[in-house]
Amino acid sequence: MIIFDRPGFPNPARIRIVLAHKGLESAVQFVSVDLIGAEHKTPAFLEKNPSGVLPVLQLDDGTYISEATAITEYLDNLDGEPALTGRTPKEKAVIHMMQRRAEAEVLDPVGIYFHHATPGLGPLLQVHKSPDWAGRKDWGERNGQRALAGMAAFDALLSRQDFLAGEHFSMPDITLYAGLMFADAAGLGVPDNLDHLIAWRGRVSDLPSVRERSGQEFGAEDLRRLGF
Amino acid sequence: MIIFDRPGFPNPARIRIVLAHKGLESAVQFVSVDLIGAEHKTPAFLEKNPSGVLPVLQLDDGTYISEATAITEYLDNLDGEPALTGRTPKEKAVIHMMQRRAEAEVLDPVGIYFHHATPGLGPLLQVHKSPDWAGRKDWGERNGQRALAGMAAFDALLSRQDFLAGEHFSMPDITLYAGLMFADAAGLGVPDNLDHLIAWRGRVSDLPSVRERSGQEFGAEDLRRLGF
Ligand SMILES: N[C@@H](CCC(=O)N[C@@H](CS)C(=O)NCC(=O)O)C(=O)O
Ligand SMILES: N[C@@H](CCC(=O)N[C@@H](CS)C(=O)NCC(=O)O)C(=O)O
Repeated sequence: MIIFDRPGFPNPARIRIVLAHKGLESAVQFVSVDLIGAEHKTPAFLEKNPSGVLPVLQLDDGTYISEATAITEYLDNLDGEPALTGRTPKEKAVIHMMQRRAEAEVLDPVGIYFHHATPGLGPLLQVHKSPDWAGRKDWGERNGQRALAGMAAFDALLSRQDFLAGEHFSMPDITLYAGLMFADAAGLGVPDNLDHLIAWRGRVSDLPSVRERSGQEFGAEDLRRLGF
Repeated sequence: MIIFDRPGFPNPARIRIVLAHKGLESAVQFVSVDLIGAEHKTPAFLEKNPSGVLPVLQLDDGTYISEATAITEYLDNLDGEPALTGRTPKEKAVIHMMQRRAEAEVLDPVGIYFHHATPGLGPLLQVHKSPDWAGRKDWGERNGQRALAGMAAFDALLSRQDFLAGEHFSMPDITLYAGLMFADAAGLGVPDNLDHLIAWRGRVSDLPSVRERSGQEFGAEDLRRLGF
């Protein structure tokens, strides 16, 4: 299997955590895609993923799988023990509900904030963003506010339970964790009065599959190159 | 089980099709929520789904499941034969990839078009939409264009295969079908040069689980009340 990604970016990080959690890191080969150079908007890459974003998994039969949720479903089900995506109908339902909410309320709005309210990934990429919206700071700022509201909503949920889907760490925890990492990298930050969210973040950071990856992979080297 | 929904609306329609396909219609009780009266933005409903949208499934143990994808995972896995969400890791991956793409590229942009470029669900609901964006027609129009581009991309895919995930009807077909139904209801329409998409739509309409539901449930009575 091949993973096309870029270390230090939030959606790729989701899959790095899944791979570590499932003990699958040595089963994949990583190919790094130059986001700042807009390599993911070239025809060659758009054939792999028409949405033009990372990560992408290529299966041994050549099939390309994009969307972190879909890649997680694949990797988590390989051993017949889908702990991250759920074993029972109810587990699957709660996990997919929270997964969608973590994307829609935190991770994706932080991405819009980053690309529209900040210089984002720099000038080479901005020409690929829709010209009438790329410079719309108000749209970016509004999404930053939305992400902060999403964090507060998850803080309230985490006052009642240890992880997003209940008692156990699963896919939506990875999504939200990546969202907070992105919020920090993009300069939006995580409000320090969100005690339950911050305690949960500590619990997630302490998991071996997350801890092992965080020093090196989440270095956000490219973001630093861009001045974050 | 209880389903809180509103017949005639696209995301509720997704679940009506799933229920028919799985033979589960008599296992659920339907409770109709008044979208035009903004009942889904009341505190009582937001306790069921903080995102304030339909449909919502309530399990017999009281748990609320929102997000059509999550509800579909639940219902499809009850009998241990998840034909709509995939049996193998690869099926699950392709289905979730296409599902997310059908939402992101067609169904959700049509929703934004509907709420921002048209009078949407009328004045009672508009006050619950963010005041600085509710009237932004340019944002709505841009999403209408995005949905049309998404339809063209799916047309190209469907020139090579019968259904979105390959040979068999599954969850993403339901999502895209609901997206086209919404595009028609919202006045955006489906371009009639998209031959493969239109042929696929015919194949989906002919499935018993879809055909049985379409006359009565997809009548979009509320949309007509609003002048569509
Ligand atoms: N919904 C996608 C989101 C992927 C995404 O936005 N990836 C970012 C990196 S974290 C990207 O490729 N951004 C480049 C761009 O927006 O041009 C997923 O789940 O994989
Ligand atoms: N992502 C959600 C979308 C649900 C949704 O947007 N539902 C519409 C009806 S089709 C709704 O409740 N709209 C009311 C509103 O936007 O206020 C899902 O998959 O269930």
